[in-house]
Amino acid sequence: MTGGSFDLLEGLGPVPEGGVYMDNNATTRVAPEVIDAMMPYLVEHYGNPSSMHRFGAESGRGLTRAREQVAELLDARTPAEIIFTAGGSESDNLAIMGTLRSHPDKRHVVTSAVEHPAVLGLCKDLEKRQGYEVDYIGVDGEGRLDLDQLRDTVREDTAIVSIMMANNETGVLFDPVTIGEIVKQKGVVFHVDAVQAAGKLPLDVQQLEMVDMISISGHKLHAPKGVGALYVRKGTRLRPIIVGGHQERGRRAGTENVASCVALGAACEQAVIHRDDENTRVRALRDRLEAKILPAVPDCRRNGVRDERLPNTANISFDYIEGEGILLLLDRAGIAASSGSACTSGSLEPSHVLKAMGIPFISAHGSIRFSLSRYNDEREIDYVAAVVPRIVERLRAITPFSKQRSTF
Amino acid sequence: MTGGSFDLLEGLGPVPEGGVYMDNNATTRVAPEVIDAMMPYLVEHYGNPSSMHRFGAESGRGLTRAREQVAELLDARTPAEIIFTAGGSESDNLAIMGTLRSHPDKRHVVTSAVEHPAVLGLCKDLEKRQGYEVDYIGVDGEGRLDLDQLRDTVREDTAIVSIMMANNETGVLFDPVTIGEIVKQKGVVFHVDAVQAAGKLPLDVQQLEMVDMISISGHKLHAPKGVGALYVRKGTRLRPIIVGGHQERGRRAGTENVASCVALGAACEQAVIHRDDENTRVRALRDRLEAKILPAVPDCRRNGVRDERLPNTANISFDYIEGEGILLLLDRAGIAASSGSACTSGSLEPSHVLKAMGIPFISAHGSIRFSLSRYNDEREIDYVAAVVPRIVERLRAITPFSKQRSTF
Repeated sequence: MTGGSFDLLEGLGPVPEGGVYMDNNATTRVAPEVIDAMMPYLVEHYGNPSSMHRFGAESGRGLTRAREQVAELLDARTPAEIIFTAGGSESDNLAIMGTLRSHPDKRHVVTSAVEHPAVLGLCKDLEKRQGYEVDYIGVDGEGRLDLDQLRDTVREDTAIVSIMMANNETGVLFDPVTIGEIVKQKGVVFHVDAVQAAGKLPLDVQQLEMVDMISISGHKLHAPKGVGALYVRKGTRLRPIIVGGHQERGRRAGTENVASCVALGAACEQAVIHRDDENTRVRALRDRLEAKILPAVPDCRRNGVRDERLPNTANISFDYIEGEGILLLLDRAGIAASSGSACTSGSLEPSHVLKAMGIPFISAHGSIRFSLSRYNDEREIDYVAAVVPRIVERLRAITPFSKQRSTF
Repeated sequence: MTGGSFDLLEGLGPVPEGGVYMDNNATTRVAPEVIDAMMPYLVEHYGNPSSMHRFGAESGRGLTRAREQVAELLDARTPAEIIFTAGGSESDNLAIMGTLRSHPDKRHVVTSAVEHPAVLGLCKDLEKRQGYEVDYIGVDGEGRLDLDQLRDTVREDTAIVSIMMANNETGVLFDPVTIGEIVKQKGVVFHVDAVQAAGKLPLDVQQLEMVDMISISGHKLHAPKGVGALYVRKGTRLRPIIVGGHQERGRRAGTENVASCVALGAACEQAVIHRDDENTRVRALRDRLEAKILPAVPDCRRNGVRDERLPNTANISFDYIEGEGILLLLDRAGIAASSGSACTSGSLEPSHVLKAMGIPFISAHGSIRFSLSRYNDEREIDYVAAVVPRIVERLRAITPFSKQRSTF
């Protein structure tokens, strides 16, 4: 290792072809089966499903089937409970704003401190600009939700409680059954952002009977970007946030994005097929990655509780160095990972999730999320596990923090 | 012609292969060049543009180029004036709601009586549920906007004027320069829904200096469904309607629909290339269709002014019969057309546009829109022109209206 010319990969053999993609909580590769399913709706069946001719009817049939497939993933009673949207952020906004617009008298919202920006940003806006009162439920050092605080916070006049199922940064799971029981004791609408959970964990709205709405996002489960869905339990009042045409039973105006909806349907079908793989093979790969890195690198730790976590997610803090530096060298080694949420990247603020967990600044700043998928394999894990200690050592040797460290 | 077994196509030769698609104001075939441009972003470059690695950077470059291409179609000063959305309806909602949210003190909105449902539906909602005052400017019998009424209606405390550039049903054009001058005399924000005009007519925001925002929709100009854009002139205040992440400079949260944005960019580039064809060859095809049908069918008329119209659109009323019946038989002949707007189809209400023009019920109910594209040719025109009189004759022979007609 000699200054700027240090060779990160010396002796490691070639970078796995095409690079190593371990940023699946940011976005996923579109599954080949999904592309095959959607192509006819891009190329031939281009009609508007609202149109009264064969071109429209072909599109309409694809859309109908897609809605059934999404409903099947969630075990929804009827496809009419599925609203297609342009993605997870729109689904979250529709759930919350649509509920608030249906209950104009209720001005109190409850969420958690570790939600995705689509929920958290909207809640901040509700507080700052729209005169709502919002409470943010905290988490403990391992990312577990404070259920006592939740119990004390939800009120009869709360309009909606929106709490995620799986955290995008740490993978920590919140149990919608336990939370839902607390919420329903006060008779409040309960929305679950399941964008990270869908496709990785079973999600059965018959069992989750206390959940009124569930957000899912296509591009987190191997469908393309720009499509998502909101499950809305029959009988739930919901005003649209995009108003106009009759589409989606008047709950979301605009010509349906047929090809992408078909893709989401196909991705849901694939997710059911691959869910076991996710919870056995992918989980084992993730555990192998942690088991190799954690003992090999001094002053590093896993963020988030060990067991109640998404099977694909490892969030590791490397003290005294910066996440961006790690990402840069990982990228040089052909490895794609993330520091914090991609949706807030570009900012110098440390992750709001790790902050809420009370992770000290010196650790939070050097935290990296590896998020796997069905397309990763053992060779990639071993490659990443070999590269990471070198990168950390390299960065600690040249950053100012490392000097402090040696004096502590 | 013998009762139910009447052969619509007798003596006409085979239906043109793949059918005749003349419903391009409802949605268009995705151009092959557009599919070629987007495919790499579906298959290989699947990174999240916000991510700090090569997968993200590849996506980001595609998105940047796409934004430039959209900006070029409109001659925008900078690509930063382009916000990508999920389509025309979202663009319209963002323009109007985003402006209202930026000017909470202004409670008056002006639009026209013949807007697309994305504007009209939202305005009805603003009136009924959100306490706004909305004025709807009328049109004359040929669909021309009542500029005197506009002049009398726009006030200093009007929050926004939203008036379309080209009507989706009749193709009638409103001149944004004339309208903009009236709007700007009162210093009011001016939004133009150019969903039908974009790609068919020149659209230059340097010349349209009185226009603050312009909506465009991908699937009306040979890009896929589910993507659109809103041009927002630098300096225009606009709050997001989908709140959360930092994307689109904080004006539209959610992971960018990269492949579809790339497709929209490519479609804008193609639109520039094909714009002359649209205004010469396609216009001539449309004129040929009208010149053949209008004299051949008794009691039919063109709706909308003859000259200031989209070059691709023909809206023809056939008295005494119903549009749905015509569409059904057209479809049987392999011809795709529309009655009224696809976005309001399924309803039994006659077109709000023709109603606003004062077209009598007996005509409005039997109105058909043929909307052409670069993919139509003369053979198709002649085929449609041969089929239509047969259909009308057939329907008039069997509908109750036809009896009334014979007694008038």
